[in-house]
Amino acid sequence: MEYLQRLVAQFAKLPGIGTKTAQRLAYHVITMPVDDVKQFARDMYDARGKVKYCSVCGNLSEQEVCEVCSDTRRDASIICVVKDARDVYAIEKTHEYRGLYHVLGGTISPLEGIGPDDIAIKPLLTRLQGEVQEVILATNPDVQGEATAAYISRLIAPLGVQVTRIAHGVPIGTELEYADEVTLAKAIEGRRNIF
Amino acid sequence: MEYLQRLVAQFAKLPGIGTKTAQRLAYHVITMPVDDVKQFARDMYDARGKVKYCSVCGNLSEQEVCEVCSDTRRDASIICVVKDARDVYAIEKTHEYRGLYHVLGGTISPLEGIGPDDIAIKPLLTRLQGEVQEVILATNPDVQGEATAAYISRLIAPLGVQVTRIAHGVPIGTELEYADEVTLAKAIEGRRNIF
Repeated sequence: MEYLQRLVAQFAKLPGIGTKTAQRLAYHVITMPVDDVKQFARDMYDARGKVKYCSVCGNLSEQEVCEVCSDTRRDASIICVVKDARDVYAIEKTHEYRGLYHVLGGTISPLEGIGPDDIAIKPLLTRLQGEVQEVILATNPDVQGEATAAYISRLIAPLGVQVTRIAHGVPIGTELEYADEVTLAKAIEGRRNIF
Repeated sequence: MEYLQRLVAQFAKLPGIGTKTAQRLAYHVITMPVDDVKQFARDMYDARGKVKYCSVCGNLSEQEVCEVCSDTRRDASIICVVKDARDVYAIEKTHEYRGLYHVLGGTISPLEGIGPDDIAIKPLLTRLQGEVQEVILATNPDVQGEATAAYISRLIAPLGVQVTRIAHGVPIGTELEYADEVTLAKAIEGRRNIF
């Protein structure tokens, strides 16, 4: 079953897909109608070929400039800095944010040999010469994300642009007792007046 | 992001893959090297094209007759009846069973309109005219699986072939207190002498 095993191996290479799941997916594919499999294979190939990086913000885009950057109704005075394009998608789904984005394409991680020049920090600084008034640092609340946010904030500080960090705290819909100590400490540290 | 969304939709159609996971997988694919994606798409298409059903037992196979049926070292006097090809794979992994298989391609389920003639029961009976001495019914321990096993055992009984059912009981590596009542009852009912 050489061809089947090859497909299992392909699925198993995807993030979060273990051998058992890969097996299940491969078995499913080979019992799908041939035309459906052909379409799936084509969609996969097409998506990879058509999707590129926005030349302005680094977000994924099927055009030279992404949908957010080319939307003139967006507030060009705010830039939200994220690690990767999936974060843009996550924030867009909230329908809460109307500014622009900047995708770093990674975070500073000396252990992995990723320095400031390996992610899109310089292109961000170039963008700040225009009408930008605020930069929201929305990197992940982990060691690399915090370090990257700190590094960028030091670079921007002298430019007279306001730099903010997304709030950390207890997630909505969970119970306080299940929050970890660091999250709870951040939630208390970041407390706000309610009236 | 039409092409990306199409790929997300394809992944979301796979069993056990929700929208969030589909998104993650699609985003991963479009950041993979182009050649890798091309290979993945080709492997998917090839696997579907090359894999067919064994003309003897109904197992998945890349040849006319599957690896198990064409292996002369297997014990042709025992046939293990399973619901689908994934079950064959699961049993093969134990390296415990050296007989042949018969894949039904489903189980009897009146609610879903699946009757005895919709699954490969007749081809099984045809196979019993040879040297077969035992038929192991290894359908799932659910309502459809039990009903299918009962139906087949009644058909085979007059043929003078021994019919057995796989043991049901407490799975190895779990704790007794977490087993459900039906499983525990089956485990007690199916108890065996140890000396």
